[in-house]
Amino acid sequence: MTNAPVFDQTFASTFEQLLVWRRDVRRFKTDPLDVASVKHLIELACLAPSVGNAQPWRFVNVESPARRAVVRSSFERCNHDALSDFRGERAKLYAQLKLSGLDDAPVHIAVFCDRETPLGHGLGRKTMAETLDYSVVAAIHNFWLAARMVGIGVGWVSIIDPVEVTQALEVPETWHLVAYLCVGYPVEEHDQPELARLGWQQREAPESFILER
Amino acid sequence: MTNAPVFDQTFASTFEQLLVWRRDVRRFKTDPLDVASVKHLIELACLAPSVGNAQPWRFVNVESPARRAVVRSSFERCNHDALSDFRGERAKLYAQLKLSGLDDAPVHIAVFCDRETPLGHGLGRKTMAETLDYSVVAAIHNFWLAARMVGIGVGWVSIIDPVEVTQALEVPETWHLVAYLCVGYPVEEHDQPELARLGWQQREAPESFILER
Repeated sequence: MTNAPVFDQTFASTFEQLLVWRRDVRRFKTDPLDVASVKHLIELACLAPSVGNAQPWRFVNVESPARRAVVRSSFERCNHDALSDFRGERAKLYAQLKLSGLDDAPVHIAVFCDRETPLGHGLGRKTMAETLDYSVVAAIHNFWLAARMVGIGVGWVSIIDPVEVTQALEVPETWHLVAYLCVGYPVEEHDQPELARLGWQQREAPESFILER
Repeated sequence: MTNAPVFDQTFASTFEQLLVWRRDVRRFKTDPLDVASVKHLIELACLAPSVGNAQPWRFVNVESPARRAVVRSSFERCNHDALSDFRGERAKLYAQLKLSGLDDAPVHIAVFCDRETPLGHGLGRKTMAETLDYSVVAAIHNFWLAARMVGIGVGWVSIIDPVEVTQALEVPETWHLVAYLCVGYPVEEHDQPELARLGWQQREAPESFILER
């Protein structure tokens, strides 16, 4: 192929800024999102790599107030349970953190992995079956970066009971919940994670994560 | 924050081209990679989101020929086993696929998740512990996109025995293998997955993966 694009230095430094300014958003404006924009983000998500080209990603646009209420109450209970794991100052800090944007985000998308998809014919996942779930994570990350690019925030809510949420959404039995995403315009932009800014966990130097063998 | 960058339409269309032209590469030139470039890709990987800001990603640069030989023989055995799952035309097609670039890629990076990292203090992963592994996948995807941007190819090898490979690399016991990456300059560039081009698995329309609830 000779028509492959070349990504120049200007693009590269802007792309790095995109990585720097992508955040896990918990504070959303309630302004609605354009349906076509969200659909386009899902199209870009589907350009992610997947093991065996299995494309196991399934996007559930959760609109029903009753189903959203189940998710919200699951979050509240799980978050309350998690708080009890901490003591003293750390418990105080945990209680102050805002860990989901479920109340304000106009769009909720649950992302599943169809673990029994016939697509891909099982290629590449015999010894590391979890790569099917990982393919869905790559799609979510495409979605996340593309969203940030157009000024849309994404928050990944993991403090929920996946069984409860899956049941509430009435999806096929073979679907495994990977993520519950809040999507909407963010109230503010930051180049540092909220958990670092609020003193929960600082960033470590990348060098500390590299080993030679 | 008022200094947040704005990503314009030119950047957006180029970014979409980056997603389109990112491939799982199996055909590498043997030309070496610049050490600083690889380190910079890891730095960009570390800008990925992680649950609780736990930064569980661990990058092992595999240089030892003896360790690489273990990985290669693990791949050969697992790939041979996988072939026996297929019959007829599909077996013939599987046998023709090139599923790893282990022989030619100048850089091998095994990426692990430290499942016992104290970073993040357990936040966000009590009910969905797998989000720690998912954080590592997001880092790998940052690496992958950033690599493609500078013309470096990445191939994710999953047809290996993770226990065997983990042992060969002598990493801490709490580290869980997420991916084994081949990294180097690609022989060719494509805007379609190899498995689609060779007739193993076509791409489906994104619409078929969207549900309303």
